[in-house]
Amino acid sequence: MGNEEKQNKVLGEGKGKYRVIGTRPVRPDGVDKVTGKANFGADLNVADMIHGRVVRSPHAHAKIKSINVKKALALPGVKAVITAADFPELGPGDIAAGEVTVSFHDMSLTVIARKKALYDGHAIAAVAATTPEIAARAAELIEVEYQVLKPVMTWKQAMDPTAPLLHEGQITKGVKPAPEKPSNVAARSEFALGDLAAGFAEAEVIVEHEFSTETVHQGYIEPHACVASMSADGMATVWASSQGQFMVRAYVAKLCGMDISKIKVIPAEIGGGFGGKTVVYLEPLAVALAKKSGRPVKMVMTRDEVFRATGPTSGGHGRCKIGAKKDGTITAADLEMEYEAGAFPGSPVMLGCMTGTTPYDIKNMRAVGYDVVVNRPKAAAYRAPGAPVAAFIVESTMDMLADKLGMCPLELRLKNAAKEGTKAPYGPKFLAIGYEDTLLAAKASKHWNTPLGPNQGRGIASGFWFNIGGNSSASVALNEDGTVIVVEGNPDIGGSRASMAMMTAEVLGIDVSRVKPLVADTESVPYSDLTGGSRVTFATGKAVVEAAQDVVKQLRQRAAKIWEVDIDQVEWKDGMAVAIETDKYKPLSIADIARMAGKTGGPISGKANINAAGAGPGFGTHICDVEVDPETGYVKVLRYTAIQDVGTAIHPSYVEGQLQGGAAQGIGWALNEEYVYSKEGNLLNTGFLDYRVPVASDLPMIDAILVECPNPGHPYGVRGVGEVPIVPPLAAVANAVSHAIGKRVDSLPISPPKLLAKIQSKG
Amino acid sequence: MGNEEKQNKVLGEGKGKYRVIGTRPVRPDGVDKVTGKANFGADLNVADMIHGRVVRSPHAHAKIKSINVKKALALPGVKAVITAADFPELGPGDIAAGEVTVSFHDMSLTVIARKKALYDGHAIAAVAATTPEIAARAAELIEVEYQVLKPVMTWKQAMDPTAPLLHEGQITKGVKPAPEKPSNVAARSEFALGDLAAGFAEAEVIVEHEFSTETVHQGYIEPHACVASMSADGMATVWASSQGQFMVRAYVAKLCGMDISKIKVIPAEIGGGFGGKTVVYLEPLAVALAKKSGRPVKMVMTRDEVFRATGPTSGGHGRCKIGAKKDGTITAADLEMEYEAGAFPGSPVMLGCMTGTTPYDIKNMRAVGYDVVVNRPKAAAYRAPGAPVAAFIVESTMDMLADKLGMCPLELRLKNAAKEGTKAPYGPKFLAIGYEDTLLAAKASKHWNTPLGPNQGRGIASGFWFNIGGNSSASVALNEDGTVIVVEGNPDIGGSRASMAMMTAEVLGIDVSRVKPLVADTESVPYSDLTGGSRVTFATGKAVVEAAQDVVKQLRQRAAKIWEVDIDQVEWKDGMAVAIETDKYKPLSIADIARMAGKTGGPISGKANINAAGAGPGFGTHICDVEVDPETGYVKVLRYTAIQDVGTAIHPSYVEGQLQGGAAQGIGWALNEEYVYSKEGNLLNTGFLDYRVPVASDLPMIDAILVECPNPGHPYGVRGVGEVPIVPPLAAVANAVSHAIGKRVDSLPISPPKLLAKIQSKG
Repeated sequence: MGNEEKQNKVLGEGKGKYRVIGTRPVRPDGVDKVTGKANFGADLNVADMIHGRVVRSPHAHAKIKSINVKKALALPGVKAVITAADFPELGPGDIAAGEVTVSFHDMSLTVIARKKALYDGHAIAAVAATTPEIAARAAELIEVEYQVLKPVMTWKQAMDPTAPLLHEGQITKGVKPAPEKPSNVAARSEFALGDLAAGFAEAEVIVEHEFSTETVHQGYIEPHACVASMSADGMATVWASSQGQFMVRAYVAKLCGMDISKIKVIPAEIGGGFGGKTVVYLEPLAVALAKKSGRPVKMVMTRDEVFRATGPTSGGHGRCKIGAKKDGTITAADLEMEYEAGAFPGSPVMLGCMTGTTPYDIKNMRAVGYDVVVNRPKAAAYRAPGAPVAAFIVESTMDMLADKLGMCPLELRLKNAAKEGTKAPYGPKFLAIGYEDTLLAAKASKHWNTPLGPNQGRGIASGFWFNIGGNSSASVALNEDGTVIVVEGNPDIGGSRASMAMMTAEVLGIDVSRVKPLVADTESVPYSDLTGGSRVTFATGKAVVEAAQDVVKQLRQRAAKIWEVDIDQVEWKDGMAVAIETDKYKPLSIADIARMAGKTGGPISGKANINAAGAGPGFGTHICDVEVDPETGYVKVLRYTAIQDVGTAIHPSYVEGQLQGGAAQGIGWALNEEYVYSKEGNLLNTGFLDYRVPVASDLPMIDAILVECPNPGHPYGVRGVGEVPIVPPLAAVANAVSHAIGKRVDSLPISPPKLLAKIQSKG
Repeated sequence: MGNEEKQNKVLGEGKGKYRVIGTRPVRPDGVDKVTGKANFGADLNVADMIHGRVVRSPHAHAKIKSINVKKALALPGVKAVITAADFPELGPGDIAAGEVTVSFHDMSLTVIARKKALYDGHAIAAVAATTPEIAARAAELIEVEYQVLKPVMTWKQAMDPTAPLLHEGQITKGVKPAPEKPSNVAARSEFALGDLAAGFAEAEVIVEHEFSTETVHQGYIEPHACVASMSADGMATVWASSQGQFMVRAYVAKLCGMDISKIKVIPAEIGGGFGGKTVVYLEPLAVALAKKSGRPVKMVMTRDEVFRATGPTSGGHGRCKIGAKKDGTITAADLEMEYEAGAFPGSPVMLGCMTGTTPYDIKNMRAVGYDVVVNRPKAAAYRAPGAPVAAFIVESTMDMLADKLGMCPLELRLKNAAKEGTKAPYGPKFLAIGYEDTLLAAKASKHWNTPLGPNQGRGIASGFWFNIGGNSSASVALNEDGTVIVVEGNPDIGGSRASMAMMTAEVLGIDVSRVKPLVADTESVPYSDLTGGSRVTFATGKAVVEAAQDVVKQLRQRAAKIWEVDIDQVEWKDGMAVAIETDKYKPLSIADIARMAGKTGGPISGKANINAAGAGPGFGTHICDVEVDPETGYVKVLRYTAIQDVGTAIHPSYVEGQLQGGAAQGIGWALNEEYVYSKEGNLLNTGFLDYRVPVASDLPMIDAILVECPNPGHPYGVRGVGEVPIVPPLAAVANAVSHAIGKRVDSLPISPPKLLAKIQSKG
């Protein structure tokens, strides 16, 4: 940390409102993770285990004419070969329930292709053999006859009326009347407020521009991995690294044609997900191979497979037009975007439309999005899916508007900032939100007020994300010695073990070291939606608080029983039962009551199952300083500050980590990351050497400033924090580079050759 | 099965009272167990695991003068050596809480000897090394200097005033005034009713006799086994086969000086326990070795170690005197017994005193017991601990009384049978009990009415066991598809997975195949007392019923919400929510409501934590036919019928299995089993070849007749069934043999040489 601002600041910290919340205890899973004891997806080995391997399409677009597995099956050591024929064929009506985002139908065809290979790396078959080497050899022996089709690689190619269709007969949804001609455009979305034409008529200044971005990957370190076993009576156990053990269970059940109750999913630690592990790739294959072979099957992707065959997020394109009065008041905004969904419908373009202009109170607006299928892997969620690209487009246009108005871009944002009562483009009016506070914190920051040198530029950009609630279950159980176990059903991807333990400790009034958090398997905790949407600290936290309050009530009841008084005469204070208005009874600690639990009615535990409403929207504002080398086009990020309304920061270090991580990923998206395809549609950069995410030496320390505007929908004011921080960086970096070179950068990534060409271009 | 009676009969079965209870579904763990998929204590292997080995005393009684571990530590591959010095020294006041039966102090000295070796096989030190072979070699290299003392092997030797003391300064408890002289008698217990002298004065006929039995082992198939690992921050995980994961946790915590919350115990399947796995032997050693080595440690006993160093049940001796009127009315009974506790106090002699005469309504009685320490392994629980030996003594004396009265022994029992309202020697008056019904069922049985041939004899005997309640936790969770998971904290030693699933299905009104039972680890379910005392189907079952009723209430609430009616307007019927007094609403199945759970408030689950009162006492009556070969003394069991009041049989096949298993073990105890020690105190028969439990060819099919007298203390009338069946067999067999040879057999086991000597003796 280099300067005083890097003493990351928590507004409201030290207010003394809470005893545990807002402190920074050692993380419960920390030692296991730094000592290598933690078990990730690939760390399980079981007796008799064999190894699975996927056969993948070498073609971006091809009909599968035949698959001959005879030679593979004849290879000694091969125990099973599967193709799509081993799975039930799901209909288009097989959509998923609840929070699972990809329909069962599309997921099934992503897990294993049925009639067509739709991208380079698409799974065609899988084998299992006694060693990984034999499995690899067997995979080579599987003969697939393809009829190669012309690949459709970009939204532009795909929207060409003469383009080959990925899905015959696909009619664009969301258009009325429904078009007669099939198309690669899966859907059109539109969100609007007010009267767009009137808004633009009112404007005194109008800017309009086009922007483009490329496909990028979440870049999690741990490749997908699982072990599946199946008993003779058809009970499957799946050990997998994912963002949701119940999500894995639901997909495996549907895709393999099994009952949910016949599947147990044990969550491994997760080495990064960022949305990319909200779906399944290997688990149904491993279960089918285990079923066929009668042996436990381990499957681990290579990095090459991760890049070729797992869901990145959409590349996109868009046009934004904003009109304003001379004082900066925005009168209208029009946004149109095309996102590449990959091989199956479902890009996050709709979410882009819902979020792009949402930081601003714009009375007349419209956002239109097109969901376009292309011969790339099906897009998966990636932190605030859809929002970063939309924010890149809108926040770059805002920067151009500020330029044109001759106004400070921060002041332009302040002038139009959404606040309590502002109506969001997607419907609701905001309750208490802290967007304005993030701008004021930026304005007051030392960073914002530090002068720049030659070839340097500063960019500012804001971003919005909904944050969600959803179904969560939790239990809080008292041990005989008064220590506590809190159980959640959500994989810990960003510190939820710590925050669940801390909220439990806060409710019970005990030290957090006395609370042990557990992420349980699908049988040891009731159903919980997956870890995503920045929902866990909020929604699962709410369940934990409820469960802990249930325990407090029981503790008071037990004390009342011991003292033979009414429960109303007992209050819970600093981890002790205290008799009200009398010093006749010595206060009883939680350990005292735990010790006597058997005599006062049995063990003590609480639980809660909720579908949490009241998630608090999140806003952030980022400032970025860059220096551009005019001779090479290389961009160095000099300084970066991420400011965010985080509601209440349960464990500020984790929250800062979320801001820093999101910013780092967004900077990579802006500067380096992209999928490079050959003209045949083969992915060329399938490793971290060629697909370069930022490494420590590429970045300055990211400063995090936490603004705390408590969410009224949570007992401790929690709002989600994990996704907002990836929304502003694309525009913050692009705005900084634009100012450094004096030209508008409108195409990501801002790689040196592209930037050099831009610098050297005319106009 | 040979005759019609072997169509095991359930009285009351088919009454149509229940839809699931009383049926015989396939056991949930059955397929895994018969296919070898089930994981027992020794089945876990983890990365970097090393192997532990215990150094055991070759002396029955010796002072440990020094332990030199240098040579062992120098052996390549050895990672850790531990002795008692690696454990905290516990004081005599360190007794265990709750249902743990052996004090922490005595348990710690059983797990590893501190100053004295008290029996052949007593653990002195332990090593861990990279292979089991190196560990064995290292164990040999540990040099222990002993001062050998004279062993005290029997109650008789131990009670000799000149006998060496196992524990210096041990004063007999339960004697007033407290004796001044220390003794090997740890405690005296007494239970009495009425006026003994007056009772005997009233008697017209009196019999009195002495009896003896030998130490016997539970003979479980699976030796003790565990794997322990410890992370750098001191969190231990223990995978172990036991009768209670929470028991293991409590002992490991105390013996290793750790916090309970730092230990997670995962229950393995258990390959037989019968009480012998209610304590720990290896787990604290494995944890200490894991801590010292930084590696996961596996420890597995050999059969030799199981016999030499784990708790068998006490051998004992006793004298019984019973007086009766000529019509058979018993006027007085006096029982005095000495049980060998092994190296530390705590034989089950007190339980013997509480149970021996309890089947009978005897107004004037006294039972006195002496708990005597000897240089044998500390006794552990074994099915109805203490009761079989006491029943052998009392029921043999009853048989002699019947002979002397010239009365049918069954009629003598009927005449004096305890019934509702009878006061038990240990205090309470019985509520509804079915002892009389077991006698009536015996009387009506074909077995009882079948004539015998030459050299054949028939014995009848009864037995009583308390059955207990205790602390249990359970949860019932609904999956998204309406299937159900029921979670318990009790290892399944006798079918509790099936009975928990069945009671859940009964409450919910669904098919049992839709309920999946789980035995969870110590973090995934709140505290539960161990599996023992025949408490699980009763107490944990009560918790399960409560948790399921909680779910039903929620299901009704959700249906009410969907229909927008009051919950009072919704009843739960045959697995469906039904609107009362209207056909306006289509009934909603559990699956319907589960599917809509997210929209009606979140996931649905119920839980209960109880300390269950109202356990129902259990009584059984057994009939045994034998044929004695007068030339060899070999006893062949021709026919055997076990009749028992089982309350309500949840899964009759399991209940019959309990009756059959208990009878088989009791027959082994009666005829074959005993510990054979050298005069130096070394156990000579340390394998199943020499310690011979009955095998299939030794026994006829055991007929089981279930008498159902529902326990008023349980919603479905459950009473414990697992322990009663081992109480009558010792006497039933001995009575049968006595009648076959025309002489009283009073010393177990009735091995051929002993019996031949008895046959050939005069008088």
